[in-house]
Amino acid sequence: MWFQKEIRLPAVQRGFHLITDLVESQLPELEEISMGMAHIFIKHTSASLTISENADPTVRQDFESHFNKMVPENAPYYQHTSEGPDDMPAHLKAAILGSSVTIPITNGRFNLGTWQGLYLCEHRNHASKRWIVVTLTGN
Amino acid sequence: MWFQKEIRLPAVQRGFHLITDLVESQLPELEEISMGMAHIFIKHTSASLTISENADPTVRQDFESHFNKMVPENAPYYQHTSEGPDDMPAHLKAAILGSSVTIPITNGRFNLGTWQGLYLCEHRNHASKRWIVVTLTGN
Amino acid sequence: MWFQKEIRLPAVQRGFHLITDLVESQLPELEEISMGMAHIFIKHTSASLTISENADPTVRQDFESHFNKMVPENAPYYQHTSEGPDDMPAHLKAAILGSSVTIPITNGRFNLGTWQGLYLCEHRNHASKRWIVVTLTGN
Repeated sequence: MWFQKEIRLPAVQRGFHLITDLVESQLPELEEISMGMAHIFIKHTSASLTISENADPTVRQDFESHFNKMVPENAPYYQHTSEGPDDMPAHLKAAILGSSVTIPITNGRFNLGTWQGLYLCEHRNHASKRWIVVTLTGN
Repeated sequence: MWFQKEIRLPAVQRGFHLITDLVESQLPELEEISMGMAHIFIKHTSASLTISENADPTVRQDFESHFNKMVPENAPYYQHTSEGPDDMPAHLKAAILGSSVTIPITNGRFNLGTWQGLYLCEHRNHASKRWIVVTLTGN
Repeated sequence: MWFQKEIRLPAVQRGFHLITDLVESQLPELEEISMGMAHIFIKHTSASLTISENADPTVRQDFESHFNKMVPENAPYYQHTSEGPDDMPAHLKAAILGSSVTIPITNGRFNLGTWQGLYLCEHRNHASKRWIVVTLTGN
């Protein structure tokens, strides 16, 4: 069984945002799969997807703080500066975190751990809506 | 063909641990797949999975040293500190390395390079056993 | 439908290289898949694959500069030094970026965003040709 859908995520502020419920609610087809995989892919190079802690909002704030430190703006070695100081760091952060996640599907649901959630990681200051492609397969 | 199994990994010390053989030995179903994919997913946000060098134990020690430098404990900007100094760095390291790996299956085996091994990356000081979900598909 | 192929990539200089067209041109079987996934896996631990900006070559140069800063050579805590100063950083960079990418397939093509491209990330100074395993599945 195969199912694929492009979903437009709402524009969000720069930072890390929990989107598990938003994505799962748009995938009623999950219920038809007893065992399989969900591949969630973001079609952009300055935003990314990851999985992390789903409970305390300060975790997401600390992600933003740490990534800003680990991948700073205005590094003296950046040559690609014409699109603003947040652009090149955004590409680097997105590659480090990754453009997709794959989640097991079990009994019609994402089979995540109790504390796991799907994050949209928005690395630009003024981003528009983002497109993701979700591919579900299983039986 | 679909196969899915939850495997409980033994508790290990903080650090990077080679688990290729441990995982493969619990998957006799691999032999039934001539061409496919194995998706290995960890259901936690302070441990992760990656693939790296499988021979020299100092490589795994250098991973621990470098990740402790790149994602330090007690950074002044951390707000999520109530679960101990190793907790927030653990979430960051896990997101950087990733919660899953996907390995091609060829002729009933993981199709890894000669020097590749699967690592369990344990980022907490006092961790319990960790659950992974392995999903195999192919024909 | 399943298809799997090992492809030998040409040896490249240390740095980040756009290989979308090179890979796609070796996969005529993509056209047979209307909806599916392409898993691209590199069988090495000192080179990696990622997806990022496909237009401005200075982006790829900034990736090299930033990764050299974030994962330096000759860090005092490295123990695995016998294979040269570029070896241990190569393993770390490869784990951070990842050994595989998974791309949705839609209507016989990689379903990438307008600005997305597949990068071969070569982390060694004197690398030979690299093997990737491409697994296509879908219907």
